[in-house]
Amino acid sequence: MTDGLLVLNAGSSSLKFAVFGIPTDADDLAVTLRGQISNIGAAPLLSAWRRTDGPGGVAKRSELDDIDNHQQAIAFAIDWIERHSAGMSLRGVGHRVVHGGSERDAPAVVTPALLDELDALSPLAPHHQPHNLAAIRAVADAAPQLPQVACFDTAFHAIQPAVARRLPLPARYRDKGLQRYGFHGLSYEYITAAVARYHAGQLPQRLIVAHLGNGASLCAIRDGKSIASSMGFSTLDGLLMGSRCGTLDPGVLLHLLREEQMNERALSDLLYNHSGLLGVSGISSDMQVLLNSDAPAAAEAIDLFCYTLVRAIGSMTAALGGADALVFTGGIGEHAAAIRARVCGDLAWLGLAFDAQSNERGADLLTRADSRVKVWVIPTNEELVIARHTRRLVGAAL
Amino acid sequence: MTDGLLVLNAGSSSLKFAVFGIPTDADDLAVTLRGQISNIGAAPLLSAWRRTDGPGGVAKRSELDDIDNHQQAIAFAIDWIERHSAGMSLRGVGHRVVHGGSERDAPAVVTPALLDELDALSPLAPHHQPHNLAAIRAVADAAPQLPQVACFDTAFHAIQPAVARRLPLPARYRDKGLQRYGFHGLSYEYITAAVARYHAGQLPQRLIVAHLGNGASLCAIRDGKSIASSMGFSTLDGLLMGSRCGTLDPGVLLHLLREEQMNERALSDLLYNHSGLLGVSGISSDMQVLLNSDAPAAAEAIDLFCYTLVRAIGSMTAALGGADALVFTGGIGEHAAAIRARVCGDLAWLGLAFDAQSNERGADLLTRADSRVKVWVIPTNEELVIARHTRRLVGAAL
Repeated sequence: MTDGLLVLNAGSSSLKFAVFGIPTDADDLAVTLRGQISNIGAAPLLSAWRRTDGPGGVAKRSELDDIDNHQQAIAFAIDWIERHSAGMSLRGVGHRVVHGGSERDAPAVVTPALLDELDALSPLAPHHQPHNLAAIRAVADAAPQLPQVACFDTAFHAIQPAVARRLPLPARYRDKGLQRYGFHGLSYEYITAAVARYHAGQLPQRLIVAHLGNGASLCAIRDGKSIASSMGFSTLDGLLMGSRCGTLDPGVLLHLLREEQMNERALSDLLYNHSGLLGVSGISSDMQVLLNSDAPAAAEAIDLFCYTLVRAIGSMTAALGGADALVFTGGIGEHAAAIRARVCGDLAWLGLAFDAQSNERGADLLTRADSRVKVWVIPTNEELVIARHTRRLVGAAL
Repeated sequence: MTDGLLVLNAGSSSLKFAVFGIPTDADDLAVTLRGQISNIGAAPLLSAWRRTDGPGGVAKRSELDDIDNHQQAIAFAIDWIERHSAGMSLRGVGHRVVHGGSERDAPAVVTPALLDELDALSPLAPHHQPHNLAAIRAVADAAPQLPQVACFDTAFHAIQPAVARRLPLPARYRDKGLQRYGFHGLSYEYITAAVARYHAGQLPQRLIVAHLGNGASLCAIRDGKSIASSMGFSTLDGLLMGSRCGTLDPGVLLHLLREEQMNERALSDLLYNHSGLLGVSGISSDMQVLLNSDAPAAAEAIDLFCYTLVRAIGSMTAALGGADALVFTGGIGEHAAAIRARVCGDLAWLGLAFDAQSNERGADLLTRADSRVKVWVIPTNEELVIARHTRRLVGAAL
């Protein structure tokens, strides 16, 4: 009977899960089972993969009945996992929680007081936080004996200097929680821990990480610590994303309110769900689809994605006072060689000597030996970061 | 009897004017009289300066009766100018007009058709455009014989590449005029024309101009042409300003609409009039006041101003693919040596070798001979740009 940990990432209509076996020695955790329940509330679908399927192995997919909410999804998932993890006993559950507020710079064991604290942050991340917390409550209902750990996407940034967190508004708004937080912190934490293995055994002093997925952001990391991030108060700011706008002149929102009579709900729907790559191209939020398209509007969206990214890397370089390394991660960062090539080509002024052949063949180092800035591709692993924290904190909680 | 040109810059409650004598040879224009009527509609006040007062000479100030609107202000100003410009005959009037739309890349002689075109742009710049156009109409009423020229703050940027002008929104919004325009174009045009006199007789290939006044923006200029600007769709975006917010996470506006029940009017008032240096410090929108203050909140506002500016210069440098020269202009750029020192200090990574002594003594070159980026202080002169265009176009219109 081996021990295991469950990692959960709950979205509005999906629940991603991963099971890690806990080795009896000091070895790192290894994922044994991974899956997601999607379309919760509509036509729910289970997709799952077991380690025995091997890398790239075909995942199990099946339609499910009777999954109307997170509570049912989690009860189903825990039961399903126990039936499919021969002899493994779950010892704890780690959750990705988008918002930890301004002070929490580390994960925390879930208690009723913590849940109250995190509930109060829901207005700051209304699209994510309520779903994350619903998953925690559902686990408490389905398996009250399991200790739970909340891992915050904001925590890595909580130590940023005050000037990087300040919004250009009167102080009374800061007292109401209006400040820059930054997100994707679990990914940045993973990369920061992993980068030395690539970078000649050393943590680069001035590191820029580009987490480019459907959501996308940059983080400027000095001596291992976040000093700036392109996402700020919300997950809407910064880079052009799949369907989110990224940075946008506040005058545009005022104009849409005034001249188009849009309300907050319509504006939020436009900027979160119909902007970015999808909005500009009118075709897709998926970079790979756009890269495969001949449509001029697809090229426009890709142009704007790369342009926004290059400008933002310039801004991050200024925050750091120069750059020693740039890491690409996330779906686009790890797989879209054409995007990496364009962005790196536009950064030659930084002393970045791009190696196009290494990029094409999927190497992890994309620069020549004489490059002043080293460019790496490092697959991120937020689940593993959550599992590690959960192992550590569950041990302490038991 | 010499000929003269009148330059007007009409704000919401003020009218600035300058009179230039037209030399009979090819010499440049020289201002002979300058003033403003402020507090229009409340307790109107005239301040004026004549060339005979000498530089730094005491301006005439007098309280006025019966100035309730731009029409009365302009009728008064034209009469006053004729009485105080011994023997000068006005031959034309040039106006600063904030918005010329997406196509106009040069000033234009005012016609009824142009006025209609510019009226239609008022929703894009509701705080400025109606006042600019009211001044044009008032001159047509008071002195219908005078040809008028409209000089647009957007025109210098009209040739920016498409990617720099695109907003991250669906194309249908672009068709409604939602794109990046850029402003302060008359100042950038002046600096671009003047900088070669400073920069060893050559236009720098990759030039960044920081126009730092109560409104503030950056422009990236390659081979004399604007390729990017920090102000975009509106005059609210980009740098931290006197009372304007500059760049702001769109999620902040959504939050204020949703959680604080603010409407467009309240939000607009907050972001245009109570944010920026004023909002962060709670003390003043005036950089000089803040520099003279011991209050921690004044230091916070200055920190955020400099930080935002340094980050934005990094972004502009990325747009240009490196920088050869940086020009400071505008009230803060020309006079706040402490701000220039902090900003340049944080740009050493660009190969900028700052010369603190030159900065302190008010020299126009602030970098050492070995500096890869030259830094200049060049006083801007938007009025002169307007006067030059007006002279040229009035000649053609007569």
